[in-house]
Amino acid sequence: MSEPLRINGARLLDDLEALSKIGETPEGGVNRPALSAPDLEARRWFRARAESSGFEVLEDGMGNISAVLRSDVPDAQTVMCGSHLDTVPNGGRFDGALGVVAALEVLRTVQDAGLMLPYHLEAMSFTDEEGTWGGLLGSRALAGRLTPDDFENARGSTAALFKQAMESAELTPQGALRAQRSPESIRAWVEVHIEQGTRLEESEAHTGVVTSIVGIASYWLTFIGRADHAGTTPMDRRLDAMRGLAEFVRQARELVMNRFPKGVYNCGSVQISPGAFNIVPERARLALEFRHHDAGKLDAMREALLGLALHVVEVEGLSLEVEGLGMYPPAPMNRAVIAAIESSCNALGLRYAEMASYAGHDTQVMAGITKAGMFFVPSVGGASHSPRELTIDEDCINAGNVLLNAVLRLGEDSRT
Amino acid sequence: MSEPLRINGARLLDDLEALSKIGETPEGGVNRPALSAPDLEARRWFRARAESSGFEVLEDGMGNISAVLRSDVPDAQTVMCGSHLDTVPNGGRFDGALGVVAALEVLRTVQDAGLMLPYHLEAMSFTDEEGTWGGLLGSRALAGRLTPDDFENARGSTAALFKQAMESAELTPQGALRAQRSPESIRAWVEVHIEQGTRLEESEAHTGVVTSIVGIASYWLTFIGRADHAGTTPMDRRLDAMRGLAEFVRQARELVMNRFPKGVYNCGSVQISPGAFNIVPERARLALEFRHHDAGKLDAMREALLGLALHVVEVEGLSLEVEGLGMYPPAPMNRAVIAAIESSCNALGLRYAEMASYAGHDTQVMAGITKAGMFFVPSVGGASHSPRELTIDEDCINAGNVLLNAVLRLGEDSRT
Repeated sequence: MSEPLRINGARLLDDLEALSKIGETPEGGVNRPALSAPDLEARRWFRARAESSGFEVLEDGMGNISAVLRSDVPDAQTVMCGSHLDTVPNGGRFDGALGVVAALEVLRTVQDAGLMLPYHLEAMSFTDEEGTWGGLLGSRALAGRLTPDDFENARGSTAALFKQAMESAELTPQGALRAQRSPESIRAWVEVHIEQGTRLEESEAHTGVVTSIVGIASYWLTFIGRADHAGTTPMDRRLDAMRGLAEFVRQARELVMNRFPKGVYNCGSVQISPGAFNIVPERARLALEFRHHDAGKLDAMREALLGLALHVVEVEGLSLEVEGLGMYPPAPMNRAVIAAIESSCNALGLRYAEMASYAGHDTQVMAGITKAGMFFVPSVGGASHSPRELTIDEDCINAGNVLLNAVLRLGEDSRT
Repeated sequence: MSEPLRINGARLLDDLEALSKIGETPEGGVNRPALSAPDLEARRWFRARAESSGFEVLEDGMGNISAVLRSDVPDAQTVMCGSHLDTVPNGGRFDGALGVVAALEVLRTVQDAGLMLPYHLEAMSFTDEEGTWGGLLGSRALAGRLTPDDFENARGSTAALFKQAMESAELTPQGALRAQRSPESIRAWVEVHIEQGTRLEESEAHTGVVTSIVGIASYWLTFIGRADHAGTTPMDRRLDAMRGLAEFVRQARELVMNRFPKGVYNCGSVQISPGAFNIVPERARLALEFRHHDAGKLDAMREALLGLALHVVEVEGLSLEVEGLGMYPPAPMNRAVIAAIESSCNALGLRYAEMASYAGHDTQVMAGITKAGMFFVPSVGGASHSPRELTIDEDCINAGNVLLNAVLRLGEDSRT
């Protein structure tokens, strides 16, 4: 077996460093919410870097920007790789950015090596992975999963702000809805991303090969009682919405940990009304999110958690409003992509561990239209969505090398 | 025993009706937050009504307005009665207003009857009983219980708005701090108020003679954990502030109902941060209020509830911030005033029941400087702070008659 091709590590690290200056924060983080001025600047930087290497640059109606290294084979399919340039507010330098610069470096390395591939190679930067305006917007546009509703029913002031942000990027909902690509044109998708956890550190593996991306469901649950004077109403005559909320939060944790040990749940926000010290709460609105890798188990979690909420309101004499905010189904990764990543690790002498992803990524959308897979490199201490986010240089270079070799293997696969 | 003196019921009802038009809302409620335009109009109405009867009108630096029927006895003390004209937003027609018009009617009845009393009689309208700007402001000013802090440290925009509102009423903090009356000048205080509950309806009594006004303590409790990714962080490694909040709310209810059956507590508001579906809550800030009639028990509740919060954070691995917002001590009513009210009921052929007040009233402040007491008349269905608030005409007239006779008895008492 010949020595595997390797990327130019210094060039990749230079790109990462340059990118980290765009939207840099005093704490050493990066602030590039999707379609913000720093995000638009990062896109221009990416375009300029791609053009300086002579790549064709594509931009679609959702603002996805990609560099393409064309094959001269007629009717060639495309092997795509990439990630996203947007960040959460005051996020880290590596989340998304590493996957984009690694993809660009893959194209440059293939070009430098003079390889003539029988497929196009495309390095993609997707718009709004993080959810400033909805989440996974770019990949959903490319996969044909957006609807007018994604633009019209953003809530309250957000809809107007979203419209402004789209205009500032010279984008329109009509254009975004036309960004769909033909699935037949795409051979495969691979993404490298930082782990955002500590499993790699603990297992001392270099890369985490993702076997599936978690399914996510979100709900607003509103427990409804009766507003009463908190002094004059006897304790045993109150219909206290807060009590329903507290019972649900407590029992939901036991339910998930006992019945769904591989699932997770979160109650991340609460709104109480009327919301005064001296008024018994009439409405307690709870943000509920839960995740599981198994579609059947995710359904069972939904039934169990909503059933628990109904049980709680019955016991407490309250009523319940349930508002579903949508569900991302679990996305198992393609076995051929997993094999390409793992054999690349073996060829490069890198230890890998298979693992599930508990975070959402553009790859889960791409899995709906093509052979898709992704892998992680270590996050020091697991820090994520934080200026403390760190992936050491060696692991960034590993990211590029594994991505390069996986992409080349997926191309071999395309000739079979 | 001679037939008791009686008020002019029609005149009292006319006043109530006229007052209900000031700040009237489409739902049939009244909107007169303290120092708002409708509240200022209601004060002018009260002054005009008092002046049209020939009474002296006083206004102090906190905006308290009163009508005085002077005695010609040298160095006479004053028997005061009254309540407040301000309301909660979209409140009812009776809360506070009934006590003020009943007091005014008492003065008119005494004047009409040509009684020469050995004490001054004063009908008081206190500023901001309801808490638009702090609560019980007028009675606290008169009792010398205000400090500069009440004006300077109103929070955020409220401090500036309070300043504006004071100016619109031509009031200043300096003036308010000089509104204190000499306790020696006051012989007694009596207030009539609607019950805001259903105990009178259930007991079929005409009046509720208050034996004590509840003590109230308020705190912000903040449960502090660690913000983490709600997908990638295993359930058993989270420090979830929401979990501490839920455990506290649930256990606090059991604690209060089991150990303090005569106390009440409320958790009326919550603020979660960061407050996102996909982030484990770092901070959960809970508005806690609890009430008891016994000073020792109120202290014990404080120790038990704060102790419970500390226990919960220890078990959950969280930390706790406690922010005390002050405490109103319980106020036992004066036995002589209770006796005057009860013997008036007996003379008028009205059934009464003794009861504690679980709501705060200006009377609790007056109890700190003079012999003070109060009584309730029925609220239909217990509706309170609502346009549905209703006290039937007969009970409004009873309110005036009991107040009149109690005030006369307290004067007799003053000659002994």
